[in-house]
Amino acid sequence: MRERVLAAATELVARDGIERFRYEEVAELAKVNKTTVYRNWPDHVELVIEALSSYDADSVVLKDSGDLRVDLAEFLVALADSLSTPRGRALSNVTASAPENEEVTAIVDAAHERRMATMRERLDKAFERGELPPVDVHFLTEMLSGPVHLLLRRGRRSFTREDADQVVDIILAGIHAVHAE
Amino acid sequence: MRERVLAAATELVARDGIERFRYEEVAELAKVNKTTVYRNWPDHVELVIEALSSYDADSVVLKDSGDLRVDLAEFLVALADSLSTPRGRALSNVTASAPENEEVTAIVDAAHERRMATMRERLDKAFERGELPPVDVHFLTEMLSGPVHLLLRRGRRSFTREDADQVVDIILAGIHAVHAE
Repeated sequence: MRERVLAAATELVARDGIERFRYEEVAELAKVNKTTVYRNWPDHVELVIEALSSYDADSVVLKDSGDLRVDLAEFLVALADSLSTPRGRALSNVTASAPENEEVTAIVDAAHERRMATMRERLDKAFERGELPPVDVHFLTEMLSGPVHLLLRRGRRSFTREDADQVVDIILAGIHAVHAE
Repeated sequence: MRERVLAAATELVARDGIERFRYEEVAELAKVNKTTVYRNWPDHVELVIEALSSYDADSVVLKDSGDLRVDLAEFLVALADSLSTPRGRALSNVTASAPENEEVTAIVDAAHERRMATMRERLDKAFERGELPPVDVHFLTEMLSGPVHLLLRRGRRSFTREDADQVVDIILAGIHAVHAE
């Protein structure tokens, strides 16, 4: 029952944001009694927080195949996939609609920090091996993932592997060129 | 009266999104009678649409100084400023919270299209002059503005002229390098 309710809550936050959240809809989608939902989660924000925290840590992995271009392109595709899941869309929606809730912000920040740590680990190896001149990891991550977020938010089309290759190629070539100046 | 109500509506959508929109709050902020607001805008979505459409066209200009790097960096700073105004934040919030409303989506798309046309005009000149190899204008615009949107959404810090210079330098150098390959 718990799992079904948490999945339903995630689905609804992804669709409507946190503000339009309704117990009736969660109960209907999860196929449980509304009273059961109320009794277990008297505060709807607590339910949302538990729903968003209950999934396994982000599935966005960044491999080390030795080829930074390929690894980063695969990372961007995995990021796009993750942002497109109910949980990913729910996380985007809660920040837009509830920037003032600290617990919600903390969940979003945690997901962001996990991705940043993943990037840092891979890039540190690239710096050591001389695959990449030393750059600010935060800044590079925003540059790489900015277009992914923007394209998905527009919602006009998906983010493809071809997009990922182009973004990575241009940014890596740009960093090398600027560094060589 | 109209202007005060429209400004108040924009302010509230920027803060709360369209879902939590309340006539009482608009009336209070605009310092007018609630009945006046109801009578003039019986449908709250109509009020929001009028509020978001009532401003002058986006103030994001893209100059042609002859130096593409400087022009694009100034454009990104102007974009960040525009996205940070009540109207810019309201436009971001409505799409996140009301993706299903066609009229609202049309306003957001129009703002986006205006920016794209501005970019196209300047980039076409750059292509003609050989300042830049021919690239997809949409794609380049997403790459340049992605980090601006992402940084502002995180809300941790502002987007500076230094950020703009770095983004533009890396992307322009990258395009030249990839094209020369």
